[in-house]
Amino acid sequence: MSDDLAWRPGLRHPGHDYKVFTTAFLDAANPRTGAVTRFSLIQCADWVNVIALTTRDEVVMLRQYRPGIDRVCIEIPGGMIDPGEDPVAAAVRELAEETGYGGGRAELIGRTAPNPALQNNALHTVLVTGVSLVAPARPDDGEVLAVYTAPLAEIHRQIRSGEIEHALVVVAFAHLALR
Amino acid sequence: MSDDLAWRPGLRHPGHDYKVFTTAFLDAANPRTGAVTRFSLIQCADWVNVIALTTRDEVVMLRQYRPGIDRVCIEIPGGMIDPGEDPVAAAVRELAEETGYGGGRAELIGRTAPNPALQNNALHTVLVTGVSLVAPARPDDGEVLAVYTAPLAEIHRQIRSGEIEHALVVVAFAHLALR
Repeated sequence: MSDDLAWRPGLRHPGHDYKVFTTAFLDAANPRTGAVTRFSLIQCADWVNVIALTTRDEVVMLRQYRPGIDRVCIEIPGGMIDPGEDPVAAAVRELAEETGYGGGRAELIGRTAPNPALQNNALHTVLVTGVSLVAPARPDDGEVLAVYTAPLAEIHRQIRSGEIEHALVVVAFAHLALR
Repeated sequence: MSDDLAWRPGLRHPGHDYKVFTTAFLDAANPRTGAVTRFSLIQCADWVNVIALTTRDEVVMLRQYRPGIDRVCIEIPGGMIDPGEDPVAAAVRELAEETGYGGGRAELIGRTAPNPALQNNALHTVLVTGVSLVAPARPDDGEVLAVYTAPLAEIHRQIRSGEIEHALVVVAFAHLALR
């Protein structure tokens, strides 16, 4: 059923290097007409985000400035997966680095494509239950974070109200809700 | 509470033009250290996506090739909002163009930032209830779409299984579920 919808990919041309992503161009042929269109693409590492539930059943949240929208966002821990790194291991690493929380039991609860029209990468969502504060957070030099915990009902309220505006944070809580 | 987290934006430098997005660079100062970092940004139009429920209470879905991941995705109607266009009007327009469905009652149910670390744009999610097939679909030359309807329970199952992998489609159904 996919066959008549899938464009036929042809030549790929390099674009520019922006460090956290690169661009490229893909020539692909329309499956109905054969006409070739050049698509602009954004290539980035796979990402992971983490819903960590504490032993008191609160979620480990953080607030962080996001330059794309020039605002501070309410988020969950997450980041880029290192080359060859397992998504669950990356989740546990990011949780520890950004928040100092650890322990508990981790499992993958979702895998999505953040923006498949343009981007090639995957977002893995990991649930870690039973975490506690085990060490000081050690964020990167470029990360300025405020870590706190909140009950799930408050997070659902903030998704409804739009206070939580980061789409990929909403995706994580959708996977949790639909489990 | 935001003030100590918000970086101080400085000079903005142009990047490249990819037609569906442009890139730019923003120099911003760390609020704790004052050190200036250059952030790479992706600038695009605001987007809209649409959950349209038919008079039989099924959702208007479509399947479409996405070059970023070189796969056919299960999606809902949507697209770019024209300059100055109201998000609800854009939703009704995209629904008609891509699927031929119309009528019913439309309301905004969510507003998110698809990727606030890099992108400046917003995604508006619109719910339209009571739609029916009122005209032939008239997709753009570059759109090859298969339109169908499905019950909400089937869509939730496909989000859980990962068959629905487009993150921004998951966001739309999260807003519907949390309403």
